[in-house]
Amino acid sequence: MSEELVSRKELAFQLYELLDTESLCDKERFSEHNKDTFDAVMDTAEKIAREKFAPHNRKADLNEPTFDGEKVHMIPEVKEAFDTYAESGLIAGRFDFDDGGMQLPETIMMACSSYFTASNPSSTAYSFLTVAAANVIKNFAEQSIKDKFMPRMLTGEFTGTMALTEPHAGSSLADITTNAKPADDGTYRIKGSKMFISAGDHELSDNIVHLVLAKIQGAPAGVKGISLFVVPKFRLDENGEPAQRNDVSLAGLIHKMGYRGTTSTVLSFGEKDDCHGYLVGEAHQGLKYMFLMMNEARIGVGFGAAMLGYSGYRYSLGYAKERTQGRVAPNNKPTDKPATIIQHGDVKRMLLAQKSYVEGAMSLCFYAARLVDELHTAQTPEAKQRTAELLDLLTPVVKAWPSEFGPKANDLAIQILGGSGYTREYPVEQCWRDNRLNPIHEGTNGIQALDLMTRKLWQANGAGLVQLQKVMGEDFAKAQHPVSKQLIAELQPYLLKLQKLIPVIGAELAGENQNALLANASCFLTIFGQVVMSWMWIRQAITSEEALNDNVVSQDDEAFYRGKLQAAKYFLDWELPLTDRDFKVLSSMSDSCSAMQENWF
Amino acid sequence: MSEELVSRKELAFQLYELLDTESLCDKERFSEHNKDTFDAVMDTAEKIAREKFAPHNRKADLNEPTFDGEKVHMIPEVKEAFDTYAESGLIAGRFDFDDGGMQLPETIMMACSSYFTASNPSSTAYSFLTVAAANVIKNFAEQSIKDKFMPRMLTGEFTGTMALTEPHAGSSLADITTNAKPADDGTYRIKGSKMFISAGDHELSDNIVHLVLAKIQGAPAGVKGISLFVVPKFRLDENGEPAQRNDVSLAGLIHKMGYRGTTSTVLSFGEKDDCHGYLVGEAHQGLKYMFLMMNEARIGVGFGAAMLGYSGYRYSLGYAKERTQGRVAPNNKPTDKPATIIQHGDVKRMLLAQKSYVEGAMSLCFYAARLVDELHTAQTPEAKQRTAELLDLLTPVVKAWPSEFGPKANDLAIQILGGSGYTREYPVEQCWRDNRLNPIHEGTNGIQALDLMTRKLWQANGAGLVQLQKVMGEDFAKAQHPVSKQLIAELQPYLLKLQKLIPVIGAELAGENQNALLANASCFLTIFGQVVMSWMWIRQAITSEEALNDNVVSQDDEAFYRGKLQAAKYFLDWELPLTDRDFKVLSSMSDSCSAMQENWF
Repeated sequence: MSEELVSRKELAFQLYELLDTESLCDKERFSEHNKDTFDAVMDTAEKIAREKFAPHNRKADLNEPTFDGEKVHMIPEVKEAFDTYAESGLIAGRFDFDDGGMQLPETIMMACSSYFTASNPSSTAYSFLTVAAANVIKNFAEQSIKDKFMPRMLTGEFTGTMALTEPHAGSSLADITTNAKPADDGTYRIKGSKMFISAGDHELSDNIVHLVLAKIQGAPAGVKGISLFVVPKFRLDENGEPAQRNDVSLAGLIHKMGYRGTTSTVLSFGEKDDCHGYLVGEAHQGLKYMFLMMNEARIGVGFGAAMLGYSGYRYSLGYAKERTQGRVAPNNKPTDKPATIIQHGDVKRMLLAQKSYVEGAMSLCFYAARLVDELHTAQTPEAKQRTAELLDLLTPVVKAWPSEFGPKANDLAIQILGGSGYTREYPVEQCWRDNRLNPIHEGTNGIQALDLMTRKLWQANGAGLVQLQKVMGEDFAKAQHPVSKQLIAELQPYLLKLQKLIPVIGAELAGENQNALLANASCFLTIFGQVVMSWMWIRQAITSEEALNDNVVSQDDEAFYRGKLQAAKYFLDWELPLTDRDFKVLSSMSDSCSAMQENWF
Repeated sequence: MSEELVSRKELAFQLYELLDTESLCDKERFSEHNKDTFDAVMDTAEKIAREKFAPHNRKADLNEPTFDGEKVHMIPEVKEAFDTYAESGLIAGRFDFDDGGMQLPETIMMACSSYFTASNPSSTAYSFLTVAAANVIKNFAEQSIKDKFMPRMLTGEFTGTMALTEPHAGSSLADITTNAKPADDGTYRIKGSKMFISAGDHELSDNIVHLVLAKIQGAPAGVKGISLFVVPKFRLDENGEPAQRNDVSLAGLIHKMGYRGTTSTVLSFGEKDDCHGYLVGEAHQGLKYMFLMMNEARIGVGFGAAMLGYSGYRYSLGYAKERTQGRVAPNNKPTDKPATIIQHGDVKRMLLAQKSYVEGAMSLCFYAARLVDELHTAQTPEAKQRTAELLDLLTPVVKAWPSEFGPKANDLAIQILGGSGYTREYPVEQCWRDNRLNPIHEGTNGIQALDLMTRKLWQANGAGLVQLQKVMGEDFAKAQHPVSKQLIAELQPYLLKLQKLIPVIGAELAGENQNALLANASCFLTIFGQVVMSWMWIRQAITSEEALNDNVVSQDDEAFYRGKLQAAKYFLDWELPLTDRDFKVLSSMSDSCSAMQENWF
């Protein structure tokens, strides 16, 4: 319905008005770039997404990949899209010039990725996973491994996967049983089974580079015994060309409810005891390597959820402006003309809720990407440290909040379309199905809640929290106008309650009621998430109100900024107060959940 | 995973312990029944559901009906299931002995239907829609029409549909354009197009009896000009046998995201100007007839949503008891054995939330069914009137609450199963897809909110509300034990706030801020729904606590009742307080939504 896949005005607001992304060009790393090069790469991404990705989004959903026992088959549009993406150089977008990359900021790469995840997340996954895997290799593999694999991954000749999960070990990586036996040549022989491996097999590239977590024989129990290996589908000959088939095989495809264009695989490693793997970095450090990357992957999951939410929002908005149904007072006689449904209060509510979820989620993810850029360009170790602590603290929220509220937005989009929303003739139900993966993968939202409440909050003696308070305070100090000030005043009591709550949680975590508290962890993630999101909306409100007051704005711009202010009001008015329940549950140390017994269900 | 499709213990609790369904046998209408005949018909329903419906639930989802331009094709299991259901006499279950029915209470028929909607809602729809259509004909059609169609519908030789919606007129039936022209023989010629007509075409029965809303030429504008017609797929010959094809044709099948086994159709009436229709009752009274039935249909939608929720709950419960992952303190060393996931607090929370949603929703729907039975057996016009007023008031909640919280339960079931929940190899994602229809059809939940806040609340000078307060008070007076008393005390402040809020709303509805209020109608439905549901849980708590205190209960029974108490505690502790937000939005007459302008989005 809407002409743009993603509103360029919205992206420009997020990037340039809120985050001053242009100022990154003052940093040495990005000094060869300017706003024009940023915009040009976004233009390229938009064009490719529109021409090669968006058109087959539904077709890929209806025609999921099949496996004939030898090869995986999929609709040809996927390869065409992948090839075009690879040829554009976007896979290497964030990598160093020295590595053949474009050395672009994370913030800009995220803006580029918005077009792809909004229009066709499943075809996009092949290249995004390759970027993530190449990034691990770049950061942790020794030079010879890096030279063999990374350059070809950045051109898309090779693709990559992350092979962590096993049939019996999902959230609990401590229990993986895939093992690695040292061979005489310094390589390893890998044996085991991995499950839910996205892009684990296909014919899109000349080789597939699996990053596999496995335990070297004799390693310590638990996560401290996990190592990381590069395991290619084809071993390389002396010229670095894919040659002999490695002993990795596709045991089967998994049939998901969404994201159907991306193969989800069960992989068997070493069925013939001849699966060659190459250790990445040091033995037993695999989880650490993977988790350094996982944090960026989690930001990516959050952003994907935001953009799928955005896609449904925009579609339902267009629909609501065109579809007529019923009448609105005072023109509600049977002989009056029917009204467009956007005029009905409840439809307006559902659109405004979506807007607050998806633009709020985008704002949070861009903020996180900006922190990644600061991490990569920090002038002092102290500045880098502060940024890392804040990013660490925010990461569970960046993953979980959009992946909870993105599908909620999609659910509202379905509701706005009514019976049509329920049909596959309209795109919104697919948005929901695709998005439903996000609260599950890369650490379920339940895991994120535990991570936040029991680890991230206390890391480095709570330095992340101190930093968060500092940056929030700096933002709030910028508020000059009444709406922003009012919103800050509405948030204030929640900030105070949160400040009081945190030490109570700290004490209880060490105490006897630990299990009651852990059962209520989702409440803490909710509170923390809504406070962070309120901050994100206040940031948007401050900038918008400033623009409305200071500048001569066009009519279009005025409408845009007024919409931002109204969405911020909505969020503080309707969404933040829901956390009163969570404060109550946590501060009363409710045992409603933890006291429940298995045989009482 | 679980052995029973629906726990018989749960059904017995709802029917016999909470609602004293057995006492209905003292009424003349049900005097030929007793608990044994009730149980016997439930046994029959369970057996048919298990043997003929449950096995092809997924197959029907994967192989939706197709249309070759002549006929609709579907997997043969659907017809076998339909025929078995029809042969059992269940279609006629609630009808009079005189009509060839079993004259069973609605409450018992609902218990029977639980097995079908929990195990295969889409194959079930064909017979359920036939019951609803036959019921309309029974109540409003003249004898000759009734004689022609109803008996054969009750045997399943003919099936029925409700043809209300048109491509341009969904929620707004005032705008239908299907028209009816009187013919010389006293019948009518129907012309128009209907959309989203479930079971609108298929080969399961010898004839399909469409109940069609249309406007007779010259009728008043709006809903006051709508009449109701019987339009068969085949006209009947003088012996009442289906003979000549009527001019109704299948324009196409709609492809839904769930409920795939049920055909959803676009039907063309009178393309050749020869579609014969028979007026039901009086002209221009069609919507009134349809709505009398619609209220029962809405209870059915609520119950279907509850049972799909229940189905996912039970599956995820079984999964959580078997699947191991991670460890729980104090046994959380890497060398300790992994724990079943039900031991993790956050999984317990997600199971308890589901239990509170689905058993609460079941309880509400059975309560409504019991009111229908009281309506049919009331000894005095006054008693009947009181019951009708209460049922009218509760109906929007009975439709909307389960259809909001049933899918929420399914969403939690997906989350508990993690990556597996996201795959079509497990049943929970289908539960969600099937259930997602329920907040949309038979009046969207937005429509229900408006219906409650602007109409039902004030009907008969608020007599429904008076009756609700009376029956709630009577229930609360029965509480003898501490947990129930505590729960009532927790609800009390919400009841007081609601009592204060209602007159404020009444005043505002007539005032200038009407549009702001209408945009916040969902908040009122939420408050009213959570209060009603708290009452439902307190009813269950009172009965359970009584049983725990008064009787010598078996270990199994004790666990059952303790589970009920805990779910009630959870609901009042975690779910009811969320309405604080809704009270705040409504009492402040927030205009966050209504002030939003179309061009600000």
